[in-house]
Amino acid sequence: MFKRYLPIFNWLPHYHKRLLGADLLAGLIVTVMVIPQSLAYALLAGLPAVVGLYASILPQLLYTFLGTSRTLAVGPVAIIALMTGAALSSVATPGSAEYLQAALVLSLLSGAILVAMGAMKMGFFSNFLSHPVISGFLTASGILIAVSQLGSLLGVSSSGFTLVERLMTLLPNLPTFNPYTLAIGGGTLLFLVLMRRYGKQSLRKLGIPAALADLITKAGPVLAVVVTTLAAWYWQLAYHQGVAVVGTIPSGLPALSFPWGDASLWRALLIPAMLISLVGFVESVSMGQMLAAKRRQRISPNQELIGLGAANLAAGFTSGMPVTGGLSRTVINYDAGAQTPAAGAFAALGIALVTMAFTGWLYYLPIATLAATITVSILTLVDIPMLRQTWRYSRSDFAAMAVTILLTLVEGIEAGIIGGVTLSIALFLYRTSRPHSALVGRVPDTEHFRNVERHDVETVTNAALLRIDESLYFANARYLEDTVYNLVASRPELEHVVLICSAVNLIDASALESLDAINARLKDSDVKLHLSEVKGPVMDQLKKSDFLEALTGRVFLSTYAAWREFS
Amino acid sequence: MFKRYLPIFNWLPHYHKRLLGADLLAGLIVTVMVIPQSLAYALLAGLPAVVGLYASILPQLLYTFLGTSRTLAVGPVAIIALMTGAALSSVATPGSAEYLQAALVLSLLSGAILVAMGAMKMGFFSNFLSHPVISGFLTASGILIAVSQLGSLLGVSSSGFTLVERLMTLLPNLPTFNPYTLAIGGGTLLFLVLMRRYGKQSLRKLGIPAALADLITKAGPVLAVVVTTLAAWYWQLAYHQGVAVVGTIPSGLPALSFPWGDASLWRALLIPAMLISLVGFVESVSMGQMLAAKRRQRISPNQELIGLGAANLAAGFTSGMPVTGGLSRTVINYDAGAQTPAAGAFAALGIALVTMAFTGWLYYLPIATLAATITVSILTLVDIPMLRQTWRYSRSDFAAMAVTILLTLVEGIEAGIIGGVTLSIALFLYRTSRPHSALVGRVPDTEHFRNVERHDVETVTNAALLRIDESLYFANARYLEDTVYNLVASRPELEHVVLICSAVNLIDASALESLDAINARLKDSDVKLHLSEVKGPVMDQLKKSDFLEALTGRVFLSTYAAWREFS
Repeated sequence: MFKRYLPIFNWLPHYHKRLLGADLLAGLIVTVMVIPQSLAYALLAGLPAVVGLYASILPQLLYTFLGTSRTLAVGPVAIIALMTGAALSSVATPGSAEYLQAALVLSLLSGAILVAMGAMKMGFFSNFLSHPVISGFLTASGILIAVSQLGSLLGVSSSGFTLVERLMTLLPNLPTFNPYTLAIGGGTLLFLVLMRRYGKQSLRKLGIPAALADLITKAGPVLAVVVTTLAAWYWQLAYHQGVAVVGTIPSGLPALSFPWGDASLWRALLIPAMLISLVGFVESVSMGQMLAAKRRQRISPNQELIGLGAANLAAGFTSGMPVTGGLSRTVINYDAGAQTPAAGAFAALGIALVTMAFTGWLYYLPIATLAATITVSILTLVDIPMLRQTWRYSRSDFAAMAVTILLTLVEGIEAGIIGGVTLSIALFLYRTSRPHSALVGRVPDTEHFRNVERHDVETVTNAALLRIDESLYFANARYLEDTVYNLVASRPELEHVVLICSAVNLIDASALESLDAINARLKDSDVKLHLSEVKGPVMDQLKKSDFLEALTGRVFLSTYAAWREFS
Repeated sequence: MFKRYLPIFNWLPHYHKRLLGADLLAGLIVTVMVIPQSLAYALLAGLPAVVGLYASILPQLLYTFLGTSRTLAVGPVAIIALMTGAALSSVATPGSAEYLQAALVLSLLSGAILVAMGAMKMGFFSNFLSHPVISGFLTASGILIAVSQLGSLLGVSSSGFTLVERLMTLLPNLPTFNPYTLAIGGGTLLFLVLMRRYGKQSLRKLGIPAALADLITKAGPVLAVVVTTLAAWYWQLAYHQGVAVVGTIPSGLPALSFPWGDASLWRALLIPAMLISLVGFVESVSMGQMLAAKRRQRISPNQELIGLGAANLAAGFTSGMPVTGGLSRTVINYDAGAQTPAAGAFAALGIALVTMAFTGWLYYLPIATLAATITVSILTLVDIPMLRQTWRYSRSDFAAMAVTILLTLVEGIEAGIIGGVTLSIALFLYRTSRPHSALVGRVPDTEHFRNVERHDVETVTNAALLRIDESLYFANARYLEDTVYNLVASRPELEHVVLICSAVNLIDASALESLDAINARLKDSDVKLHLSEVKGPVMDQLKKSDFLEALTGRVFLSTYAAWREFS
């Protein structure tokens, strides 16, 4: 009981010194590495930079107690920040007090939704986001975020949450770009790309050991932050050349916040909060599962909902923003050797310490540096080969992906996800609404039956054996009727129709009515309807209706039994 | 080509005298019988009574040319009138010029939607309305309409389009009921109910021949109209006792209308128009199919969309209201012996004649009489036994039905349909998201394999044969992963896992990724993944991906082949 609802008791009692060392080191590395991205994602959402730090403290601590992944790191992440910004700017003006308050309401709402879904064991809901929709959404969001950072890289202003809005506000301002900002932003970008691609092998060639080379490569963003901050301080670029810097960050822990707001605000943010919860959960849980699998551990999706929900509630009460298990911060944590959630707790304490005492060090950090680090990490989301692969494999999956990308870019994030999910469900229903069916005949001298059009099989003239390759439900019930009626109309000599149900896993009430109608109609034409190979659960359900009594024919256990009867 | 797009050429060239007699008689009967209900449904939608006549002329004529059903009668129907009223009163005040104009816009919109769906061959869309949702919706609408007529039966006013609104406006006015109106309304109601239940047998007992007795029974509403109109005229009930009557109906054919309106009106009516189109199409096509089947004819759902679409466009341009193939008017037409769509054309001409010359005869027709005829005909929609039957057969189908009924009554018609459809799709996806799967073993001395938990079968220790009873797609892809991982975790001695795909009709891109992940994960644990009994179309699609090359095991044609390999 205890262990189930407070997963911390699964590992804390077995904690020992060797783990402590590894976790402390990982916590230290994570603290240093995630501070720049936490600031950047807060800015991406249109919020003050410090909000990103606040959202990395208590949320992560609560997840340590309640989450089931050993290595997941919780805090602001790029996609959720983008979605947050889009949601908030539809209800308030960026920079206003209402905007800040709305961010807290959004956190509370998505926390409450996640906890409620966890309590109702509705983790399966995330399955409705198909792979093509997720990957299309990530690709489009990556492009949107990269474009949104262009302005910061160039030192010009832009706004909006669709591609068109962004470009329309960015392009007219392009001529006013700030060459110093561009030098810092462009330089950082180039450095990070080169570091990512060639850093490790170049350092190894210089004779540096593999582990250290790896660490230095990963610390690339931190190096860039340190160097550009020092440069901005030394030459006072903010004053003399107008380079935008992070500026004053209030020091001290966040005050407790109780963002009640009015009912209309909560209502307006409900749908965005649902989408943020769902996307955040999917991002978090798929990464948690991947990493757990690598170490042969398991996570519980429903308990993850509770953990992430608590983290978002915490963010709402401590001046934060919506959070989830982040891709890049989790990978940093995992690679830094985190063994238990304690590493996350140490990182949270580290960030709390920085927030209390060292925010002054971040004053001269150029915004362009942050934009460059976001851009580099976000471009890994853009997965063009996946587009080609999906096109080759399945046109309808590709359609769902393409629609998700286009809608996200053109209409915005909400439209993209809702459109993609709706289309992928509609396409699945459409595919199953015209099920494959085949007239089968007996493979000579066996008890096997195969499609008469593909194989050389024996048939009988007065009976048709029709195999239905799909569960029977409302979307294909009428199609089934048409199929049988066409069959009977085309073969007037028929006296028996056998529906082979080996691939029928479900018969719902609509399909039952259609079967009733088929049975009655065939009866009028003196054709008997039989079933064969009905699965156990389906048979159990049919017995609850009057269909079996009304059935003019029989239910055969095997198709071969039906064959013997009619041949 | 001609015959396909103008179905009238399928029957008109073969037309002859014997058919003409039958069709003329049917046309005459329909004219007399549908005038009262056409007036009543216009009033139900909050429109002037004459609109119901206008909507019965040109729409029916166009359907004669373009429709594929031989006996369908097109015009205003109860459900669509209720939906029209609900849609219109959300954008205009009943009685205003805007309200009238909105009715025309709604007709044009739903006409355009139907034609577009027909052109794109999207008739299958109606399959998404499952039987439980339709039957729940009809039951709830029947109740709503009956309650809406209570006011007219009692001579008190009421308004609104949910049960609560209706009752809240009706109850306070109850004490002001008009005893004369109640006498007419209640008397007609009683007469019609008795006529329906005992009319035919009583008349036969009086020695009247069966055919005539049947006709008289069916003409019950016409008798009631004639008698109560004469009474209202003779005693001048409208003036002396305040009984509401139809009053002045402008005579003459409708003028052409071009209801352009502004864009915001069209936008506001778009969703209602879509629902009206869909519900109208389902009502029309299911009746058309039922009657066509009785006479071994066929209808084409996509051409029906065109026919009904044209009828609605005609209604929009001739001061009408949304129309569809109506249950009661079609049954009248069919029972009156209509042989071809010419009968419908004759009825349209008959109604045109009445509209031009005889509307004065309808002046004294009491509204309460119309309310009684609506109530009696609508109560046949309320199908309580179906509720019990569905509950017994399937809880999830019952849930969809119950939600549709409750939402329709409490929140209104749109919420009812959308909620019901959404829930039935979600429940279907949920059911298929946790597919049944079974470990199977060999039935001794055969090539058959059965569930190890239900049968006494042979197994091998180093290989698991897992049968998946569902298509693999995004909603169950992760569940499949869990199932396989749990299996492998619980049996460390496993070296081979065979997925038996005999019931897998589809593997989408999400499921393919899951199979890839399973393959890779099992490889890490030195377990080989095999497939067996993969269907032809599924195999063709897998070949378009890299999965088969990466697969650590083999694809066996039969499970028996896999068994021989491992035992």
